[in-house]
Amino acid sequence: MSGPLVVDIHTHVYPPAYIDMLRARKKVPYIHNPSDGGPPRLIILASDDDSNIPVDQRGRPVDSSYSDIKVKLDFMNKHGIDCSVISLANPWLDFIGEEQASEWAQKINDDLESTCAQSNSTAAPSARLRRLFAFGTLPLGAPSPAAIADELHRIKTLPHLRGVIMGTTGRSQGLDDPNLDPVWKALEDTQLMLFLHPHYGLPDEAFGGPEIVRRYGHVLPLALGFPLETTIAVTRMYLSGVFDRFPRLQILLAHSGGTLPFLAGRIESCIAHERTFKVNGGNVQGPQRDIWDVLKTNIYLDAVVYGTAGMKAAVEASGGTTDRVLFGTDHPFFPPLNEEDEKWASVVTNYSAIDKSFEQNADAIARVLGGNAIRLLKLA
Amino acid sequence: MSGPLVVDIHTHVYPPAYIDMLRARKKVPYIHNPSDGGPPRLIILASDDDSNIPVDQRGRPVDSSYSDIKVKLDFMNKHGIDCSVISLANPWLDFIGEEQASEWAQKINDDLESTCAQSNSTAAPSARLRRLFAFGTLPLGAPSPAAIADELHRIKTLPHLRGVIMGTTGRSQGLDDPNLDPVWKALEDTQLMLFLHPHYGLPDEAFGGPEIVRRYGHVLPLALGFPLETTIAVTRMYLSGVFDRFPRLQILLAHSGGTLPFLAGRIESCIAHERTFKVNGGNVQGPQRDIWDVLKTNIYLDAVVYGTAGMKAAVEASGGTTDRVLFGTDHPFFPPLNEEDEKWASVVTNYSAIDKSFEQNADAIARVLGGNAIRLLKLA
Repeated sequence: MSGPLVVDIHTHVYPPAYIDMLRARKKVPYIHNPSDGGPPRLIILASDDDSNIPVDQRGRPVDSSYSDIKVKLDFMNKHGIDCSVISLANPWLDFIGEEQASEWAQKINDDLESTCAQSNSTAAPSARLRRLFAFGTLPLGAPSPAAIADELHRIKTLPHLRGVIMGTTGRSQGLDDPNLDPVWKALEDTQLMLFLHPHYGLPDEAFGGPEIVRRYGHVLPLALGFPLETTIAVTRMYLSGVFDRFPRLQILLAHSGGTLPFLAGRIESCIAHERTFKVNGGNVQGPQRDIWDVLKTNIYLDAVVYGTAGMKAAVEASGGTTDRVLFGTDHPFFPPLNEEDEKWASVVTNYSAIDKSFEQNADAIARVLGGNAIRLLKLA
Repeated sequence: MSGPLVVDIHTHVYPPAYIDMLRARKKVPYIHNPSDGGPPRLIILASDDDSNIPVDQRGRPVDSSYSDIKVKLDFMNKHGIDCSVISLANPWLDFIGEEQASEWAQKINDDLESTCAQSNSTAAPSARLRRLFAFGTLPLGAPSPAAIADELHRIKTLPHLRGVIMGTTGRSQGLDDPNLDPVWKALEDTQLMLFLHPHYGLPDEAFGGPEIVRRYGHVLPLALGFPLETTIAVTRMYLSGVFDRFPRLQILLAHSGGTLPFLAGRIESCIAHERTFKVNGGNVQGPQRDIWDVLKTNIYLDAVVYGTAGMKAAVEASGGTTDRVLFGTDHPFFPPLNEEDEKWASVVTNYSAIDKSFEQNADAIARVLGGNAIRLLKLA
C-alpha cells in the first residue's frame, strides 16, 4: 500500500453489553423489535420517540455495524482507513444513574481496551498502523466529580485508550458548570484528549415546533441541531472561563466544531461590546483569553464537515494551519440508503473536501488524513 | 479621494415616526425613559423584557444614531463609506396588526425614499456615489399576501428603494409557509433584493434556560442566537422547495448567512441520507436543487462576519467567487463601549477581515467593499 496513512478519529461503537442494556429499556435510549419481524430499531433521539410516528417506524434500523467490530474493520478496509479511534456512540452513559455510572464506565472502557488489543493482535502483517485505538467514556452521573476524575486516571493506564468522548450536558448543567472543574483538572493532568460530541440538538421550538421538525425528517435536528448544540456548549465553556482556569485542556470538537470556526469572530466581537463583561476597557467578568487563542491552543477540529467551505473555515480558525484538523467518518451513522453502494457517500464527500481544499499540498492532506492524529494521540 | 468605492448594505435606521410609535408602547418592542433621567432605552428583544432586570436597565440606550440621518452620514464619513443602503431595523413591522400593516409600510417606505432623496440632493460635490439608498419594509401582517405583493410593486417605483428587508417569521409561520408564495412571486417579478435578517434568536432553552442566558449578557442571543435563527429560517425555505418554485429569487443573508456557508455541506449530506426524502435514489419530497447551486444562484452574503475564517467560508460557499459577498457595518448596533473611540471596533474588524482575506487581490477587495453592491443594486 502507498499513500498517506489514514486515521478515523470519529467512529462509533455500541459494545454488545451496551446493546443488551438498550434492548432491556423501554424509554429513550432503547432498542425496539418491530412486530413485523423487521430489523430492530434504535431510538436515541427524544424527537424520534414520538407518538405521531408508528412505534415500529421510530428511530433508525440498527444492524451489526453498530456493535460488531468485524463490520467496522470491513468498513475501514473498504474506505482505505488504516486505523480507527473508536468511541462509544451517543448518548453514552448520560442516562445512567449515580449508582451504576462508574461500574458502566469501567465496563465500557475495559471492553474497548480488550476489543482494540484483540483486534490489533490478529491484524494482517501488512497493516501500516495498529488498527484500533479508543476514546473512553466517563461516569458523568457518578455521585461526585472525584469519581469521574478517578476513571480518567484509570483510563490513562489502559494502553489503547487515548482520550475520552463526552456529550454537551456534563453533569446535567452544561459545560460551564463549576462542578466540572475536577474533571477539567484531571483532563489536564492526564493530557487525555476530550472528544466533545453533540446528542441533544436543540428544542423543537428552535425550529418552529415539532410539526415543522417532523416535516423534514431528521434534517433539521441532525444538520442544524447537532452542530448548533456543540457550538453553544463550547461557547458556554469559553464564556465561563474554563479555558482560563485550565489552559492545557486539549479538546477535539465533533463536526469541525459545529459552527464555532464560522462564528468565532462574531463571538469575539459580541464579547468586546458586552457591557456585562467590560469595565473601563478591561474584561472583568468575561473570558480573559481571546477565542482565536483558544482555537489555536486548546481546540482541535475533526474534518467531518462535508465540503470545502467548512474545511477552509476550520483551517483558518485553527490559525491558518492544517495541524489541528483530523479526518473522521461518523461511522456507522449516515450509511447509504441504497445498500448496494460500494463506498459510503458521506465518507467520499469528506475525503473529497480534504482533497479539494488542499490539492496543492500533499503534506497538508497527509496531516489531516492521519498525521495529526498519529502525532497528537501517539498512535505510531 | 482614492481607493475603492465603499457601500454599506447592512445599516439600520428607525425613522422618527417609528421611534414615536415605540415611545407610545409599553410592551416589546418599546422605548422606556428611565426614572433617573438617563438616556431612553430601547427594548426590542423579548429576553431583555425580563422582570429580573431593573426596568431602567433593560435593553440598550438609544440615542440619535438610531434615527437622525445626519449621525449616519457622520458615521459614514468617519469610516470611509461612500454610500449606505439603509434599512428599517428589527423588529420592523412584525408586531403591527393587520389593520395598520399596509399603512405603516407605506409610511416607512415613503419616509426612506424622501430621506434618501433629500440627503442625496444636498451631498457634497465631491461625493463619488449618491450617498443613500434604502431597502424597504413589508406589511407582513396585512390581511392578505396580495397586499404584501402590492407594496413590493409600489416599492419598485420608488427611485431610491432597491430591495426590502425581512425577518425570519414571515406571516408568523416561518419562511416555508406556502402562504408566502405570492410574496416570492412578487420578489421574482420585481427582481428586488430581499435582505433576510434575524431578530428573534433562539428560545432560552436552547442555551440552557434564562438564567444561563442572563449570565453572559447579550453574548449568547446575539453571537449565536441571531446567526442560528437565520440559518434555520433559510434552511426551512430551502427544504420546502421555495428555491425550486422561485428560482429567480435574489436573497441577501445577514451576517454572512448566519452559519449557512459552514453548514451547507452537512445540510446537503443529511438530505442525501434522509429516508423521508429519498425513494429509489430520487429526491421525491426534498428540495430538487442542491444547496450549492442555490448559494451560487440565489444567495448573496454580507461581509459582517468579523474574521477571516467566516469570510473564507462565505467566499467558498459562494462558489469560490468574491462576486457575492458585500460589505456592511450593522450600524448603529455594536457601538464602542468607550465613546471616545475614534473608529468603531466592529467596523474596523470587518474591514480588516476583508483586507486579510484578499490581500493579494485588490479587485476582490474592491468588489466586496462596493463593486458588488453597485452592480447588483444598480447604485451608480
